[in-house]
Amino acid sequence: MTGKRLAPWRVLGRSLELDGSPRIRVWKEEILLPDGRRIDDFWRVDVPDYAMIAVETEEGQVILERHYRHGVGDVTLTLPAGGIEPGEAPLAAARRELLEETGHKAAQWRALGSYVLGANGRFCTVHLFHATGARKVAEPCSGDLEETEILLVSRKEALAAMRDGRIAVLSCAATLALALLGEG
Amino acid sequence: MTGKRLAPWRVLGRSLELDGSPRIRVWKEEILLPDGRRIDDFWRVDVPDYAMIAVETEEGQVILERHYRHGVGDVTLTLPAGGIEPGEAPLAAARRELLEETGHKAAQWRALGSYVLGANGRFCTVHLFHATGARKVAEPCSGDLEETEILLVSRKEALAAMRDGRIAVLSCAATLALALLGEG
Repeated sequence: MTGKRLAPWRVLGRSLELDGSPRIRVWKEEILLPDGRRIDDFWRVDVPDYAMIAVETEEGQVILERHYRHGVGDVTLTLPAGGIEPGEAPLAAARRELLEETGHKAAQWRALGSYVLGANGRFCTVHLFHATGARKVAEPCSGDLEETEILLVSRKEALAAMRDGRIAVLSCAATLALALLGEG
Repeated sequence: MTGKRLAPWRVLGRSLELDGSPRIRVWKEEILLPDGRRIDDFWRVDVPDYAMIAVETEEGQVILERHYRHGVGDVTLTLPAGGIEPGEAPLAAARRELLEETGHKAAQWRALGSYVLGANGRFCTVHLFHATGARKVAEPCSGDLEETEILLVSRKEALAAMRDGRIAVLSCAATLALALLGEG
């Protein structure tokens, strides 16, 4: 799958159009395409990278979180996830968020890949993990803004929630699907 | 999975902080949390919704596109996808984009769900489809900015590309994983 040479775009200049650091920055870029055309206003958005985990307990149940998420505008089911601190490795962030949000530690960890959220605007990189053999070692203590309910459900129930819209955020559906697709 | 009552956030006010219509708009919202706390600067980003398709040909091969994507900053493998025109249904957009980008029409279409890209900032809604029984009826003519190479690969090769980073955009990995996970 390494075919013909495809040239990258050249960034001729960029200006910071909105600075809501550290939560968001928006840049306007001036682009030179390989065929010589120019684009004066290609938008790039930077928001913080995060890690997300499909977690299964020792008993084989999937951990879901039920809470209001403002991007969805409704109560929805999500997976444990959270922002990566400066200097923190994605796996370390995933372990920390799992413990903070659910009080669980997991015995096995598998990386499912790191992906860019937006093919054009970039937004951020999300690091996906599959953790198994999880057990509760503490009470949740996330400090997040939302009141959260922790649910333990079967794989079948988690897949049903993914397919009927109760899981409404793309990264949650992606992480769950990649985890349950296995390594085959 | 319908537990205790969880209250939504209230938006007390919002200001348009960046207007790059129709490509991007960024709002700053003033939020009242259910517990009485206030957030003065919750950011919401609006970019256009899009449709994406995991396509399999009549011969059972997966259609991938190889091109430079500026959000990735490199040449990468993606799935057919594109923005939804005003008034257009997501499935209609998916059929149109498949034809424009690859010259293919598909016999069977299955919706894989619609998901919000950002749990906090929203960004957009992506509509995912699985199309099978596709065959080539025309030459590609997408009008996109990138030079694109169309590849036909086995399911196994597509999954390998998803796992080793050649597929680098989250929505592409999500669509492929959801499609290949099947309906079981």
